[in-house]
Amino acid sequence: MPAATLENAQWLYVRRPEGRVGAEHYELRKLPLDPAVAANEVVVAVRYISVDPYMRIQQAARDTYDVPHPLGIVQRAGTVGQVIATASERFNVGDWVLGYGGWQRYHRAHADELQRLDPLEAPVTTALGALGMPGRTAWFGLMEAGRPKPGETLVVSGAAGAVGSLVAQFGKRAGCRVIGIAGGAEKCRFLRERLHLDAAIDYRAHATVPAMAAEILRLTDGVDVYFDNVGGWISDAVIPLIKRRARVVICGAISQYDGGLDQPELGPRLLQHLLFQRAVIQGILARDYTHRMDEMRNIVAPWVRAGQIVLEETIIEGFEQLPAALGSLFTGHNLGKLLVRV
Amino acid sequence: MPAATLENAQWLYVRRPEGRVGAEHYELRKLPLDPAVAANEVVVAVRYISVDPYMRIQQAARDTYDVPHPLGIVQRAGTVGQVIATASERFNVGDWVLGYGGWQRYHRAHADELQRLDPLEAPVTTALGALGMPGRTAWFGLMEAGRPKPGETLVVSGAAGAVGSLVAQFGKRAGCRVIGIAGGAEKCRFLRERLHLDAAIDYRAHATVPAMAAEILRLTDGVDVYFDNVGGWISDAVIPLIKRRARVVICGAISQYDGGLDQPELGPRLLQHLLFQRAVIQGILARDYTHRMDEMRNIVAPWVRAGQIVLEETIIEGFEQLPAALGSLFTGHNLGKLLVRV
Repeated sequence: MPAATLENAQWLYVRRPEGRVGAEHYELRKLPLDPAVAANEVVVAVRYISVDPYMRIQQAARDTYDVPHPLGIVQRAGTVGQVIATASERFNVGDWVLGYGGWQRYHRAHADELQRLDPLEAPVTTALGALGMPGRTAWFGLMEAGRPKPGETLVVSGAAGAVGSLVAQFGKRAGCRVIGIAGGAEKCRFLRERLHLDAAIDYRAHATVPAMAAEILRLTDGVDVYFDNVGGWISDAVIPLIKRRARVVICGAISQYDGGLDQPELGPRLLQHLLFQRAVIQGILARDYTHRMDEMRNIVAPWVRAGQIVLEETIIEGFEQLPAALGSLFTGHNLGKLLVRV
Repeated sequence: MPAATLENAQWLYVRRPEGRVGAEHYELRKLPLDPAVAANEVVVAVRYISVDPYMRIQQAARDTYDVPHPLGIVQRAGTVGQVIATASERFNVGDWVLGYGGWQRYHRAHADELQRLDPLEAPVTTALGALGMPGRTAWFGLMEAGRPKPGETLVVSGAAGAVGSLVAQFGKRAGCRVIGIAGGAEKCRFLRERLHLDAAIDYRAHATVPAMAAEILRLTDGVDVYFDNVGGWISDAVIPLIKRRARVVICGAISQYDGGLDQPELGPRLLQHLLFQRAVIQGILARDYTHRMDEMRNIVAPWVRAGQIVLEETIIEGFEQLPAALGSLFTGHNLGKLLVRV
């Protein structure tokens, strides 16, 4: 049992951002941790906290895929931690668990809300990455909405991110020619040298729609599958290059999250390209595949154990950094999955 | 056999329009009609010439669903006419036939290129409408891409047009609540009183995105299927109102055909709504279903024979009117299928 003097810390979401999210939209609260546990209850010391683009979607003014995140409560987030107190026979002190503890140092959960992790099977942080929500998004988004076929050209935007880097690897395994789009030379080197993509495009070096389109056309004869995490002007360049019966998967639109969800940006009308190419644009969301998590893990976990999946992470040290870490997603500096270590 | 003195007239497509298409993009050519027929050849006197929005798509500067319509040749078009000379055992003089004769008074075809029509089965003009390309587009576009379910809300833009008026009726038969969008009180009366739609929205009376959105929300709790013939600002109003797992069918974008295919208009970025609602936008094209024409006719022709389908047509008299008739599609004055009677 923990000492009664433990102190919890929580980041409360208190103010709706209109542009970039940052520390001013959160308040840090410290409070004593009550170590008592009721029947089936578990207290977890959080070690890793997930920082994901979807959090900013939930801060939009209107309903999106959900009602807005309520103000005044702990920022919701997936967490990996260790059990420090337990009144459940299913968990022992010291066990690693996946939970939905939010941005706090400790969280209390019913045993049913936690999932035990085996650190010998895979790094525990994969529960927030390749074997967790981002992995599920990448796997089902690509395989079910993207429907890649061997020899097809797959373009992935945000290809160095948590979901994109997995989509790119799954696409290679599916036999596609994979072109990753990312920002900066370092990320592009990662895509080419670590993920072994067929090509990488630095959007900072091709920073207009015509330049990006020309680069895609230099590398491809058109796009069969476009897995889009970014939206905005990058999609303006890609979508007119889709081929007959292309599939465009809208997984995210991170370029639009600094306010563009409340007041949409203007962009060129592109829907006629769907008609010309008899193509499909489909939006996907991780939660639609939650019940099929085991199906994904049964396929992907052996690849992870065999070291065949690059599990890239950017880990920011310090609980205090959480709001800044969230904001940093939108400047595009993270490589792979962004986590905060508590 | 026709007298050797017959004169053919042809509208040649000679100049690419940049905005609205009109007579200045065509040249009228008159030439004697050679009445001789080779083996299996048939000469047809055209009675009805089809005028369709897709013709303007083929006049875009870049490839669309096809290469651009060549300059200097007869404008391609579906035609219904009567055989006046035949060297095929399969056709007799006087037979009604469907062909792809283009904008000319007479056309010459191989027997294989023609399809005999039985005027006792259905009005011959239905071969260019409900039982022809527009019918096929409406049927497969709605049923296969739209996938309407009883009780769902179907919104149809361009609902008083050739395809839209069929989609609306097919949607009612599929058990949907159908809202038609069209321009002007007369068309809306047609939608309500003749097609028995649940509601009609006059876009001229709700001529802004917020006004259109408010009217849709007054009439519905959101949109399950949006069958779009129009694009542009009307879609800007409809797409943010889609419901969970909605299907948006892009059949046309007639609001964009006056130049917006060459130089895209700007509009609000809407793709994030697909993610929020896990929805699909799919482009469809009639030619993808050509091989399934019989399947559509087996279902729809009995409804036509039983008088259960409203076969609305706007017939413009006079071969000379063809270019103006095409241009008129984009001012939205036709009710139902637009034809020119020769």
